[in-house]
Amino acid sequence: MGEFDLIARYFQRPRPQGDYVALGIGDDCALLAPRAGTQLAISSDMLVEGRHFLSTVSPEALGHKALAVNLSDLAACGAKPLAFTLALSLPRVDEAWLEGFSRGLFALAHAHGCALVGGDTTQGPLNICITVFGEVPVVAGKSQALLRSGAQAGDDIYVSGTVGHARLALEVFRGNVQISEELFAQARLRMERPTPRVALGTALRGVATAAIDVSDGLLGDLGHILKASGCGAEIAIDSVAAPAIFHWANDGFDIEFCREMSAAGGDDYELVFTAPPSARDAVAQAASHSATPVTHIGQITAERALVLRDADGSLVANTFSSFDHFKTA
Amino acid sequence: MGEFDLIARYFQRPRPQGDYVALGIGDDCALLAPRAGTQLAISSDMLVEGRHFLSTVSPEALGHKALAVNLSDLAACGAKPLAFTLALSLPRVDEAWLEGFSRGLFALAHAHGCALVGGDTTQGPLNICITVFGEVPVVAGKSQALLRSGAQAGDDIYVSGTVGHARLALEVFRGNVQISEELFAQARLRMERPTPRVALGTALRGVATAAIDVSDGLLGDLGHILKASGCGAEIAIDSVAAPAIFHWANDGFDIEFCREMSAAGGDDYELVFTAPPSARDAVAQAASHSATPVTHIGQITAERALVLRDADGSLVANTFSSFDHFKTA
Repeated sequence: MGEFDLIARYFQRPRPQGDYVALGIGDDCALLAPRAGTQLAISSDMLVEGRHFLSTVSPEALGHKALAVNLSDLAACGAKPLAFTLALSLPRVDEAWLEGFSRGLFALAHAHGCALVGGDTTQGPLNICITVFGEVPVVAGKSQALLRSGAQAGDDIYVSGTVGHARLALEVFRGNVQISEELFAQARLRMERPTPRVALGTALRGVATAAIDVSDGLLGDLGHILKASGCGAEIAIDSVAAPAIFHWANDGFDIEFCREMSAAGGDDYELVFTAPPSARDAVAQAASHSATPVTHIGQITAERALVLRDADGSLVANTFSSFDHFKTA
Repeated sequence: MGEFDLIARYFQRPRPQGDYVALGIGDDCALLAPRAGTQLAISSDMLVEGRHFLSTVSPEALGHKALAVNLSDLAACGAKPLAFTLALSLPRVDEAWLEGFSRGLFALAHAHGCALVGGDTTQGPLNICITVFGEVPVVAGKSQALLRSGAQAGDDIYVSGTVGHARLALEVFRGNVQISEELFAQARLRMERPTPRVALGTALRGVATAAIDVSDGLLGDLGHILKASGCGAEIAIDSVAAPAIFHWANDGFDIEFCREMSAAGGDDYELVFTAPPSARDAVAQAASHSATPVTHIGQITAERALVLRDADGSLVANTFSSFDHFKTA
């Protein structure tokens, strides 16, 4: 099977709904027709075997994850997904792999009304690069995008869902820890099929002052907000780690391990965001409307430092380091 | 050096001119602010060592080529370059490589006023994925994009510049042919530093009926126009091959070899386009205004066949096959 047959068989779908896609797959360029009064949010992620996924992952889960990590970036900006391009380097034409990968990819794409509009396929080491496009409204001349730079001293800090499972699964795959089958199934699902928090992200427009998605680790990613906003934070570390502390107890993990997985784990694709105390009701409403649990985990401070406290208010040393794609973990 | 230092040092430049970039590198998404009455043209290309470039290429030339092949897709659509994202997988952090690559990349980007607005970097087998964004005007409700599907029976067929040098250089690198140093220098330059025909592409808006860029081979790429437009073509094969026949004579190549390189070579990044005979003056003006030579090479026909004729008008068998990224040449 040649390049064009491969695209036609696995990646070309009927023309998607939505008048923003003026031209999809099949020409030199795709054409988007942005609506008046909107900005286009763009994010690009490249996934490499061994760095972003293990060879044990199913093609279907990989198709899901490749798009999910990009949709998560749109979510962190409060952007509504519109379309994406897919560039794919494959060692060989493996039809079973392509069938599974495209099924996982399109299932998530359809769930978000996000059309595949173009891309590239070539032979080479397995590499998946998706670039995603979303829409952000501009209201009274002001972009409604959630940025990293808007946090203010006194703002509350929240995280969506739970963090830590994805890293726990990775540690099991690495042979560093052993856990019950039930917990492993949960953790593996989080690692391999993350849920991009798109509905929460768009619901937080005009409510959150800053946001980021947790890809490299909660504290490290929060650090990007603090740097961009020129402020610091005080975090109740056991609020972050509470789900792990509570649910992993049967597997014999101590509190330090639960903190490490939760605060520095990475690959969670939850949202960390800030909002003023006056917006607490609005945050609760955004969580409720998007059916996404959010937890208050701390406060933004004027002093440029990241302070961690345990449940008793005692200081906890910050020994947690994020994932770096150029360092070997 | 970690991921964020690498981006800051080699890829983060002062905020570009142009109010369409509302937010560049450094947040979860970049934000573009499309102008009213325009569409956004999008193209994505992935370059893999051994498939799209040889390990002998200089990092600077590779930075140039990685962007050039994407700008060429914009040119084929008649789109004006605005911005691009870069996703880069690198085996290791090699500062000399990064310095050269980014120099070549930004030299071409600046020449076209095209801003790097985001992307991704990771460790893995060398892979370069650029997604490029361009602007196409919409006039009286009609997109001015040049598509593959607009060719009509009776239209003239043109190619810009010359084709064949890039493939000739590849054959030298493969050890299949030997040529003079002078010709090799010319051919290698065409292979490693292609010139995207952006000025010609935008000048052809409203003039050309269809266009495509020559990446896989002139006849194969023309075939995409014929298929999309539902028509055929008659090509004066020696008009296509004339520059090779004339300039490569001293190197002892016969006419069949010159035809093969020119008609099926690939990697030329010239434009093949169609326009009605009534637009001959307008085509000449577009060529002149963009300082890009164009050659008339044939005619679109109603019958869905690709017919090749030599300088005497005799039929030439079409034994030329294009480059397929999933077949080994």
